[in-house]
Amino acid sequence: MNTFFARLGGLLLVTALALLPGWAAAEDGYELWLRYRPLVAPAMAQLPVRSIVVAAPDSPTLRAAVAELQRGVAGMAGRAPAVADAPGPGALVLATPARAPAGVSVDWAALGAEGYALRSLVLQGRRVTLIAANTDRGLLYGSFAWLRAAQTGADLSRLDERSAPKVGLRLLNHWDNLDRHVERGYAGASLWDWWRLPDIVDARYTDYARANASLGINGAVLNNVNAKADSLTAPYLAKAAALADVFRPWGVKVWLSARFSAPRELGGLKTSDPLDPAVRAWWQAKAAEIYRVIPDFGGFLVKANSEGQPGPQDYGRSHADGANMLAEALAPHGGVVMWRAFVYAPEAKDRAAQAFDDFKPLDGQFAPNVIVQVKNGPIDFQPREPFHPLFGAMPKTPLALELQITKEYLGFSSHLVHLGPLFEEVLKADTHRGTTVAGAVKAIAGVANIGTDRNWSGSQFDQANWYSFGRLAWDPDLAAADVAREWAAQTFTARPAARDAIVALMADSREAVVDYMTPLGLHHLMGTGHHHGPAPWVDNLERVDWNPTYFHRASRSGIGFDRSASGSKAVAQYAPALARAWGDPRSTPPELLLWFHHLPWDHAMPSGRTLWAELVTRYDRGVATVDSMARRWAALNPDIDPQRHAEVTAYLTVQAREARWWRDACIAYFQSVSGLPLPAGTRPPARSLADYQALQFPHAPGR
Amino acid sequence: MNTFFARLGGLLLVTALALLPGWAAAEDGYELWLRYRPLVAPAMAQLPVRSIVVAAPDSPTLRAAVAELQRGVAGMAGRAPAVADAPGPGALVLATPARAPAGVSVDWAALGAEGYALRSLVLQGRRVTLIAANTDRGLLYGSFAWLRAAQTGADLSRLDERSAPKVGLRLLNHWDNLDRHVERGYAGASLWDWWRLPDIVDARYTDYARANASLGINGAVLNNVNAKADSLTAPYLAKAAALADVFRPWGVKVWLSARFSAPRELGGLKTSDPLDPAVRAWWQAKAAEIYRVIPDFGGFLVKANSEGQPGPQDYGRSHADGANMLAEALAPHGGVVMWRAFVYAPEAKDRAAQAFDDFKPLDGQFAPNVIVQVKNGPIDFQPREPFHPLFGAMPKTPLALELQITKEYLGFSSHLVHLGPLFEEVLKADTHRGTTVAGAVKAIAGVANIGTDRNWSGSQFDQANWYSFGRLAWDPDLAAADVAREWAAQTFTARPAARDAIVALMADSREAVVDYMTPLGLHHLMGTGHHHGPAPWVDNLERVDWNPTYFHRASRSGIGFDRSASGSKAVAQYAPALARAWGDPRSTPPELLLWFHHLPWDHAMPSGRTLWAELVTRYDRGVATVDSMARRWAALNPDIDPQRHAEVTAYLTVQAREARWWRDACIAYFQSVSGLPLPAGTRPPARSLADYQALQFPHAPGR
Repeated sequence: MNTFFARLGGLLLVTALALLPGWAAAEDGYELWLRYRPLVAPAMAQLPVRSIVVAAPDSPTLRAAVAELQRGVAGMAGRAPAVADAPGPGALVLATPARAPAGVSVDWAALGAEGYALRSLVLQGRRVTLIAANTDRGLLYGSFAWLRAAQTGADLSRLDERSAPKVGLRLLNHWDNLDRHVERGYAGASLWDWWRLPDIVDARYTDYARANASLGINGAVLNNVNAKADSLTAPYLAKAAALADVFRPWGVKVWLSARFSAPRELGGLKTSDPLDPAVRAWWQAKAAEIYRVIPDFGGFLVKANSEGQPGPQDYGRSHADGANMLAEALAPHGGVVMWRAFVYAPEAKDRAAQAFDDFKPLDGQFAPNVIVQVKNGPIDFQPREPFHPLFGAMPKTPLALELQITKEYLGFSSHLVHLGPLFEEVLKADTHRGTTVAGAVKAIAGVANIGTDRNWSGSQFDQANWYSFGRLAWDPDLAAADVAREWAAQTFTARPAARDAIVALMADSREAVVDYMTPLGLHHLMGTGHHHGPAPWVDNLERVDWNPTYFHRASRSGIGFDRSASGSKAVAQYAPALARAWGDPRSTPPELLLWFHHLPWDHAMPSGRTLWAELVTRYDRGVATVDSMARRWAALNPDIDPQRHAEVTAYLTVQAREARWWRDACIAYFQSVSGLPLPAGTRPPARSLADYQALQFPHAPGR
Repeated sequence: MNTFFARLGGLLLVTALALLPGWAAAEDGYELWLRYRPLVAPAMAQLPVRSIVVAAPDSPTLRAAVAELQRGVAGMAGRAPAVADAPGPGALVLATPARAPAGVSVDWAALGAEGYALRSLVLQGRRVTLIAANTDRGLLYGSFAWLRAAQTGADLSRLDERSAPKVGLRLLNHWDNLDRHVERGYAGASLWDWWRLPDIVDARYTDYARANASLGINGAVLNNVNAKADSLTAPYLAKAAALADVFRPWGVKVWLSARFSAPRELGGLKTSDPLDPAVRAWWQAKAAEIYRVIPDFGGFLVKANSEGQPGPQDYGRSHADGANMLAEALAPHGGVVMWRAFVYAPEAKDRAAQAFDDFKPLDGQFAPNVIVQVKNGPIDFQPREPFHPLFGAMPKTPLALELQITKEYLGFSSHLVHLGPLFEEVLKADTHRGTTVAGAVKAIAGVANIGTDRNWSGSQFDQANWYSFGRLAWDPDLAAADVAREWAAQTFTARPAARDAIVALMADSREAVVDYMTPLGLHHLMGTGHHHGPAPWVDNLERVDWNPTYFHRASRSGIGFDRSASGSKAVAQYAPALARAWGDPRSTPPELLLWFHHLPWDHAMPSGRTLWAELVTRYDRGVATVDSMARRWAALNPDIDPQRHAEVTAYLTVQAREARWWRDACIAYFQSVSGLPLPAGTRPPARSLADYQALQFPHAPGR
């Protein structure tokens, strides 16, 4: 593309471009938020880019930044700016400290290795825009920041922005298998065409890396945490290296999930015991082999002794033993081990408490290049969970926050649920141990929602979750609503009324899904295996803590999981102030009430309703919000291109139907348990409980 | 798209459109042969389309034809012609008999229900182009024929063409599973997003139907012949109906593969015995249910008692009993049963002879709406097979020819192999029973090579196999080379020198793959299960007739499968003239020699070489041809857009490597068996036989 684009030179393109009659003309979502559509007249006048001046050492990353600026300006203003030697009026000046033009004054130290400054200034009598950074990667991020400012309608003549990431490692985790099936993928197959790599390198890999770079995402774990050892063989490393070559100019490092038993499976060893010298030697040789083909390899992500995966406990060793052995192999090359804390042992004790109990005692035992990766909440990516008690509780251990962008438990890609508020909620949560969750982590990982679907994410609005993840990982202090506003302006329209209507709809969506699926702190009520739809009645699974009944504990006398002092005591894992507040139903916020407490159906809620009536009210509110979202989207018809508007409309129809299904099936079930009549005026479930229980989904995606 | 396009009206578009800087600008193959790029100046002057006049009853199909003409002319000439009431100069006139303008004289009867005539003529003093047909579908096909003429550089001022299909049913068979895995699919996942249907209807379904309509393909079996019963449940019928609604204007009927045991699996019956009244009633009710939601449903394709699929023989009934029971259910609705003859029983007799022995005795026993679907050759889609002996041998039974477009045994989508010559070879084969194969069939089915890959077929050149299948199914008398020329002109370039170079390269490709995989009548030498690469040494599979050693029978004394009178006698299944010729090695063409005969390694070949030397020569020739193809493609660099040129180049590199692998592994193996030295001057295999035998491909696609 770059070559093609370079040929284009300064050719003036007409606005009629958007009316191209070919198949490619419709907005299908492929371009994501990097659409670079022509700005409307007043904004266009503000876009005075006549040239690009490079005052920085040449590199592939710098060239990528310049090409992206040319592409963006060509799209928005109709003319690609040429690269010039000296800053004329209206130049974009990309500068690093050693080569910055005279008269440029920047607090370089504050920018660090990845940050940037954008500033409108007068240089040698000419009005120019400065993009300043210490590195080519900073210039790349600054270029995308300038393009974002232009696309969102910022005043480009008065820029004065400085930004540096607060979290150093911002990674996507792809749960992609080598056969291209994506575990919990709802956007088609895996982007990685392992069979054809490294010979065939899809142009889409570049666009993937561009999109990540535009957000500051700087790493990608390519394969599923439920890993195959094959990904560590020489042929698969060559394939991963081909992807790394594509990603490198865009600042995205390749990581791999490592199967702990690889020394046995691939190396022919008798054991994978992390204390065995031959095992350690095998991993050291493997690390050296990897760095020979991927010199900037990020490191390993490991799911060990969790849900059937092999791990150090198979040999009587600890998680620290396992992680440190891999860390030792990676350390000479600068690699990092991300060791997942998502573990729950086979015993029957409260599943929510197990990761804390397993990992907290290991604090201080991990090698310096180990990061323990902790899911946002103590169960598993539910519509709402309290933050995980490990955050703030392992001061001697670098932690990573693992978020799930793919909506395994939130309606797949069919439901419009903006995750920005969910991410914000956990990032800004006060651990009461002297830090927020964001302040307690060195890395943020997001389980990707990306696949081969033309729109990348399965539905248009799911792109916003990728976007919000990346932007909040770069700067957890951003407000989710502001990030949504940026996204909507770039992805749909910068016109304020329509943009704000979209943002309002997104803002409502997260609370809606909580309401129609799992209100008041309920969790894990979904269908078995595929996790599609409601199944609160399931009580017959292999492990007791896989059953929805284990989590809601509804009976004739009440509902909820008692994690207070009278129950599993898991609440005591939080800092004392929180443990006190959440240990008492009177001081527990309603949205976490049944997470921490088992309460009678007639428990009085702050609203004045009984718990049972409040539960029904919340389910109804969720359905009503989805209906309202659909109405508000319909009203946006004049503002949105036809294909994307119709597609979102179709998805909202599905969501409205499935929200009712969740509401009806859950109410029917809980009523059958409580034996209580429906509160006056409540619409009865549309079908019988038996009908809902009979539904089966043998070909649901993502399993 | 149509709505969007209609808005466009007569807006003049500039040639600069092709330089659109967005991501969509590069040629990625999505548009197939329907690219409608601006014609170069002299050809553009020949494109005098100023208006479209519709002299035919309105219908969705007619509107589709008009929209396609508008889209095509807008792309090629820069201006979309408006629909006019009366034929002005330069009009395209679409006419059916009842409404044809005065002065139009057409041999309507010769056109049948699907045919069309294109003619340049003077009407009321104005030069116009007539597209005439008896039906809207004929007008649709005629419109695509006119667009093809325009794109291939025909003289549009002197058109006089008439065409009507010689075979009534022209179907794609999709081996697509409900989880979107495609059996023997090498182009990504299934197009059919069953999970999201019927709510979400991908715009791509329309483009799929358009592409088929452009070739005259008039039906699609949506699901794998290894069928799940689920596809016959109400939810899946609703999904299929949504696809049928999209396809209908484009003349593409929906068919389904039916699982024979559905009455037991879905209906709760104790049996699926075709003579059981309850089973018959179940199928009749199911057919009625299908036609309620898909009124023009095509019918069922059935794989029964074949490779583990259930069938009538499970109940001691014949294939005719099974097919007739389904035919009875479909008959009231006009539906058809396609009953596959691809069967081979568990006994050890020559697998190539079994379908004939099973089906020939049933001739005359099938209901009128049953068509027996026979693969092109008696084994299974090998690079070369003799035509199947059933063609011409069942005069009382309508037959269908089943071709495989997806290249299960010909290098997947990685090898450039144009199948036109293979299709042509079988279609034009003289059965010596008074007809060619094409003359002996009522239907032609092609196992599709289409998936979610952006270019539809996995590689650019595999689009040509879809194209050639459709065009040859419409008119088996076409020359494969002419069809390739049409395709190359539309898909890559109409400039004669480059176009003809592409065609020449395609023409060589089929013989090349025969040479480097299975020369001289060898067959079934491929790897187990995935069918990737050579494995002539495999001799340990569950069934003896799954082993490559079963098929080549190589030993110290010779090689080949003796199907003559001294062997399995399978050659006697052909008409006497052929049985005589092919029963004797002296009159058997070299390309079928080892299909029919087991011969000593020193057997003298017409070339003067020994059989062993000839075998090595052919393997070498195959490799050399691929090298030549790569060189000739490289020379086309100035004529092809960069992205597609680079992609094809990368695939040719893979093919050259894998052709050597085939050649080296097969020669190494056959040499180990024959014990003979390599002929003088022969390059020895690059690696040891053991090396080739050790290769494994655990994640190969398409299994």
